[in-house]
Order: sequence, then structure tokens, then C-alpha cells
Amino acid sequence: MPDPSVPQTRTPEAEQSAPEPGRGVSRRALLGTAGATGLVLGAAGGALGYAAAPAPATPLTSIGTDRAMFHGKHQPGITDALQAHGHLVAFDLKPGAGRKQAAALLRRWSVAAERLMAGEAAPHEDTDVARDAGPSSLTVTFGFGHSFFARTGLEKQRPAALDPLPDFSADHLDRKRGEGDLWVQIGANDALVAFHALRTLQKEAGDAARVRWQMNGFNRSPGTTAHAMTTRNLMGQIDGTRNPKPAEPDFDQRIFVPASGEPAWMANGSYAVVRRIRMLLDDWEKLARPAQEAVIGRRKSDGAPLSGGDETTPMDLEKADAQGEYVVPLNAHARITRPDQNGGAAMLRRPFSFHDGYDADGTPDAGLLFICWQADPLRGFVPVQRKLDRGDALSRYLRHEASGLFAVPGGAAKGEYVGQRLLES
Amino acid sequence: MPDPSVPQTRTPEAEQSAPEPGRGVSRRALLGTAGATGLVLGAAGGALGYAAAPAPATPLTSIGTDRAMFHGKHQPGITDALQAHGHLVAFDLKPGAGRKQAAALLRRWSVAAERLMAGEAAPHEDTDVARDAGPSSLTVTFGFGHSFFARTGLEKQRPAALDPLPDFSADHLDRKRGEGDLWVQIGANDALVAFHALRTLQKEAGDAARVRWQMNGFNRSPGTTAHAMTTRNLMGQIDGTRNPKPAEPDFDQRIFVPASGEPAWMANGSYAVVRRIRMLLDDWEKLARPAQEAVIGRRKSDGAPLSGGDETTPMDLEKADAQGEYVVPLNAHARITRPDQNGGAAMLRRPFSFHDGYDADGTPDAGLLFICWQADPLRGFVPVQRKLDRGDALSRYLRHEASGLFAVPGGAAKGEYVGQRLLES
Repeated sequence: MPDPSVPQTRTPEAEQSAPEPGRGVSRRALLGTAGATGLVLGAAGGALGYAAAPAPATPLTSIGTDRAMFHGKHQPGITDALQAHGHLVAFDLKPGAGRKQAAALLRRWSVAAERLMAGEAAPHEDTDVARDAGPSSLTVTFGFGHSFFARTGLEKQRPAALDPLPDFSADHLDRKRGEGDLWVQIGANDALVAFHALRTLQKEAGDAARVRWQMNGFNRSPGTTAHAMTTRNLMGQIDGTRNPKPAEPDFDQRIFVPASGEPAWMANGSYAVVRRIRMLLDDWEKLARPAQEAVIGRRKSDGAPLSGGDETTPMDLEKADAQGEYVVPLNAHARITRPDQNGGAAMLRRPFSFHDGYDADGTPDAGLLFICWQADPLRGFVPVQRKLDRGDALSRYLRHEASGLFAVPGGAAKGEYVGQRLLES
Repeated sequence: MPDPSVPQTRTPEAEQSAPEPGRGVSRRALLGTAGATGLVLGAAGGALGYAAAPAPATPLTSIGTDRAMFHGKHQPGITDALQAHGHLVAFDLKPGAGRKQAAALLRRWSVAAERLMAGEAAPHEDTDVARDAGPSSLTVTFGFGHSFFARTGLEKQRPAALDPLPDFSADHLDRKRGEGDLWVQIGANDALVAFHALRTLQKEAGDAARVRWQMNGFNRSPGTTAHAMTTRNLMGQIDGTRNPKPAEPDFDQRIFVPASGEPAWMANGSYAVVRRIRMLLDDWEKLARPAQEAVIGRRKSDGAPLSGGDETTPMDLEKADAQGEYVVPLNAHARITRPDQNGGAAMLRRPFSFHDGYDADGTPDAGLLFICWQADPLRGFVPVQRKLDRGDALSRYLRHEASGLFAVPGGAAKGEYVGQRLLES
């Protein structure tokens, strides 16, 4: 077994010897957004000291070399750009595993996540599945579920914000695919890099934890569309238009627990609500386009509100047509979910689509792995979902099949592991 | 419903008004392999007449604009580069549907495939799921299974090559996930483009056919690795090193039915063997690297034979170590599958990896959607699989869970649909 204290380079790329950029500053940004292929190759194959590596057959583009940072104020995978591939996985501690084993596990997981996000080999017996690939914007994010705290004797540290979500009338929840002691979100722009991370973390779980549930998701590949701000979901709608933007002054306050927040170990953390939302595509696709647009309140083609303008134009909720009817119907999804209709609360939605084949009757098992981030679920997800539950036009085309709520602590400082402030409190 | 005879442009890209390149000549090739982003954008936003389109937020790269051709001597999706996303789907004709309905279906499917591969909207009620994206190297490939011919009264046209494959001792086949009247292979470098094609073809199946089984797969994303020739599988091995290359003189003869071949409707066609091969990763990953390399006969790091050299070096089957043992063991997978050990037969392997989550006991449901192409399965897949079945070292780490054999006719000429020469024979 290789000595885990000696970093192994998984690729000829020299990420680990490069000057460490700040959180969120990607390799692409360092090289300038022109990001000419020759420049990237020059850096990887020459300037950073790997001139002896054989000339590659095709260049790594920034899709491969882009890198997110593991250490930082917040964990990665919350404000980073959506990746093309995602894995969500929940683990339960095994019988006999308590706080001590959980602490050791989070330490192992943090070591592995840091290495894999840098494009390096796994700490133990790397499987080579991600070999030759760059970091590919891999992010790994860790969270704690409600049940974690009793199992580890840490009930007093359990945030009130982790209290179970209320029941919603539209829920058809499979408990076996929901919640869990520990939650891991993996995202990457390469499927093998993402799978390699999933498998590595499962192996590092060892005797401490076992997989409770696991889901796969996807988003558009970088470079296949000119429409970068937002993505489309499997209903064909542009999704995420009204997401809060990091440049907005109250962004941090809405999404992250303040540094002085409670409990102290959640400083700079966030809460993730995860829902497996099946889309009833057979019913949805029977609707003509104007009917679909009335359900959402936006045009399908470009995401503009039905009241006019383009995707970023504010919705005119009062605008009426010649018959005096609101052009954005009262039960339109986009009207009901508008932050200024919900006490100013907001959540950052960062979803993946999913498609797990077909049911026996030919119905696609497809939809959205809805993931939203907020400083407080009772001010973010819950009030919005309560409103939707009372009469949103979209709800009849959706089925919430699984649910999870997780406390995602702040990012680990250098030398620290994720959750250390909880587990060593 | 829009008039299907009027092409709708799905994107601001003007592929359909561009001069039509020959089969396999991609947009990227037309623009030169430097493929500078500005050039691609210039073409899409200016030279081809869409100057009024709003400036996109980010550029489409060649990942989005690359395009495979629907019309040609052979169907697409056989010799094209592996795509990042794949869907395999089999359909059975519905009760009451016969030759006439099948012909109409193949005509509808061909129209849809041609349009989607050009980055245009679906012929009927496009769902917008692929909107904004380029063609993203989409390919759609159609095949006929053994059962198709009795259902359509075309038994006399059924090729002998479609006779059921022999049983192999290692098979654990789920019949419900195997075979089928019709088979469609979809590949694309964007997940939404691939899903959109799958869903469009399912909708076009209408009253004629229903989904029998469907599987999802993936490969590495373009640009994430410098290692372009071959891909890695979920065991971490480089896969496809010994694939026949189109430049080799006997390539066509091995992979495609000759223009004068039998039956006549299969001229320039090929036979696809499809196997869902579960990898027993928990067992595999317990093997130390040297043991894994002995199973395969090649180094994991770079795919070089254990007899030395690099990935492309011919394997020295006679080379022995100091103890007189063959350095490439007698039961090594790469030794047994060498074409020159199998009467010169060869198949073109063009697989996708799959990962459908975890079994209840924490075992990953993952492996390879093995797809191989050959002029004659009895000279391609069958003799190789027979040899593997007798004592290949890799077999104990694999389980063949589903199987299909399909006759894939030659490509459709302009104005023709795939399978027309069979269905109107």
C-alpha cells in the first residue's frame, strides 16, 4: 500500500505544485478566459515542470483542468457552477460506530476529497478510474442529518434548524431513500471523475458507515450551449432564473449561517434540502406550449416572464390582458415562488436532473434532484413549499418521492477536517 | 401543432443552411482543428445570417457544435468517437402493429433522427429540453432484433446471422432486459441532448411500439483527458486498445456487411451484440494492482502489455520471466481476446459504462454496456466469448446480465429511411 502521506500525482498535471489560487479562482481564470488550448497545455506540459511527459494525443481543455478548492470559508459545491454529473449519497453509521469513528471518518473523507479535487490519486489503493483526467471541477460536500446526533451522543449540538420538515400534502416519500446520518454531494464535469470520487468515499467509509441511499444526476455539459446563466430541466423549462446571485448584498445572509451563528460549529455553514422530484412527463408533454407557459408563468423559449421582456426582466405581477385576466396567472409557479412574495426569504437552488430508466409501463423515472441551500430552512424552503402545496399549477405534474435535510458545516481550514468543530467540541 | 414540413431551428445556430459536409466531417473540422471559440461564434452568430441574435453569455465550443451526419453509407454511431452519454433502448411492436406500421415508424424515426442530429427541433411538439444546445455529436442508430421478422411477416428476410447467440456458462441473463423487436442506440456529448432524443423517439413510437427495456451509459467527457485514443472502464483499465482502426485495410470487411452481401437489405450494415456486463467491483478492488494487471495482461497506468513497451506495442506472447513463466499469463484477458488468436476475426467495441446506483447490500450496480460491431457475429463476438467462457481470468469479476443481437442496416440515402430496403422489399 502506498504511503498516504506522500502525494501521488494522478495525472501529468502539476496542480499540487502550482501556486494555490484562492477559493473559486479556477485554473481557467488564472490562465485568462481566452483559455487557448495551447496555453493550458503549455502550463501543464512545460512551465510547471512536466516537460518530459509524452505529448498528449489531444489537449486537456479547461473542462478537464478547472479546479475547485477544498479549503475555504464555505464548503465547495454550493456556489460553484453546476457540473455535468452529480452523485448524491447518504450513509448511516454502522452499529457500534459512534463519535470517535465518525470523527475519524470525516478526517479520512476530508483528506480524500482534498486530493481528488486537486486531481491527485486517492489516499489508499487508487482504482485508476479517474486517471489521465484533470480535476474536472470536482466538488465534494459533506453534511449531517438529524439522526447523526443521537448516534454520536451529540444531541446538544443538534441545530433546531434540523427539526424534521413539515409534511406536505403532495409528498409521496420513500423513507428508505430519504434522510440519513451523513450526506455527501459529489459534482464533476466528467462522469468517471465523479464515479471515482463516489467509490473512493464509499471505500474510505470502511467499518464506520454504510450506504443508505444513492442517486445520480446530470446537467448540461459545459460548452454545449451559449446559455450559461441557467440550465434547462427535463420539462424543457429554463431553471434557476431567480436564484439569488453572489453579488447581491444579502446573498451571504440568506444562504450561509453567519460566523457568529448558532450552533457555533455551523459558522459559515448552510442547510441543504434535498428532494427527489419525479416529473410526470407523460402528462406534462400532453399540454400545449401556451398551457405549459401559463403553468410556469414564463416563456419556454427564453425564460422571459409572460408579462414581457427577457429572462432577467422583473415579472409584472399586475399586468392584465384585454379580458382583464392576469397575464401571469395567480397559480403560476414563478409567481408563487417569487422571493418578494415570501417574506424576502430565498434559497439557492442547485439541482441535477435525473433519469433512472423506465417503469414497467413505459413511464420515464425522471425528474429533478432538487437541492436548495439556505441559512435557515424555516425561512427558505419551508414557506415556499407550503405555498406551492396549497395550489401551485405545477404541482400536479410533480411527485416528491424522497426528502432529506442536512446541516452542512462551513469549509475546513488548512489542517482541519470538515465537521471537526462539531466532532471535537 | 407546427407543420412538420417546415424546419424549426432549435438554436440560433444555422446548421441546416450551412453547406452540408460529407459523412464524418464535423463542424470542428470545417472550421479547422484550432477551433478557436471566436471562429465558431463568428460562424454561428454572423456569417451564416443570425447576426441579430443576442450575444451569448458564453461560447458554444466544438463540444456543442460538432455534428455527425445522419445520411451516409453506414448508419452513424458505429465508427464515430465515443460520446459522453448514451441511451440504449429496445422497443417491441404493439399488438396489431405489423409491417406497415413498422415502416411508418422507421420513417418517422428517421425524420426525427436527422433533424435532432442537425441540432433542429423535433418534428412534432418539441419539448425544448435540448433547446440552446448544439448538435453535441448526437448519433441515433437503429437495429432489428430476431423477433421483428415474424411479427412483420418478413421471416424470409431474416439474416441467418441473427440466429440466437449460444449460451455461455457465465451468463446470468435477464430476458426482460434483453433482445427486442427494435433497438435504438443514442449517443451525445450533452446529457439533455441525449435525453431529448430518447424521449422524442419514444413519443414518435406512438401506437406502433412500446419500450421493452432501456439503459443509460457514459464515457469520459471530451477535453477532460489528454488520452484520446481509448477510454477507461470502471475497473480502471484502459479499454479498446486493440480495437480495429478504420485506416486498417480489412476494417470494412470485418465490421460491415459488404455491398453485395446477403440479405441484400443488409448491404453496408453491421451486427451489434449488446451485453449488460456487471462488474463485481468489490471483489476486483480487493486485488492488488499487480494481480489486476496479471488478470488483464496489461499495465493499468498506461495500457502497455506486461511484455513491455507502450499501449500500442504488440504483445510478446512468448516472453518469459526469470522463472520461465509467461509474463503475460496464459489466461490473461488481453491474450485470449487477441484477434490473431481468434482466426483473424475482429469486432469493433464501442461501449458505455453504466452505474445504476447501489443494491440494498451496498454493492454498486455498475459495469459496462458492452456494444460490439461486426460483419458476422459468428466470426466476431461468438468465438471470442467462447474462449473467454473457458477460462479467462477476468470472467470471475464479471456477470453478463442481459444480451441482445441486432441487425443494423446500412445508412439511409437522402430521401430514404433506415430499413426501407427491408420494409419495402
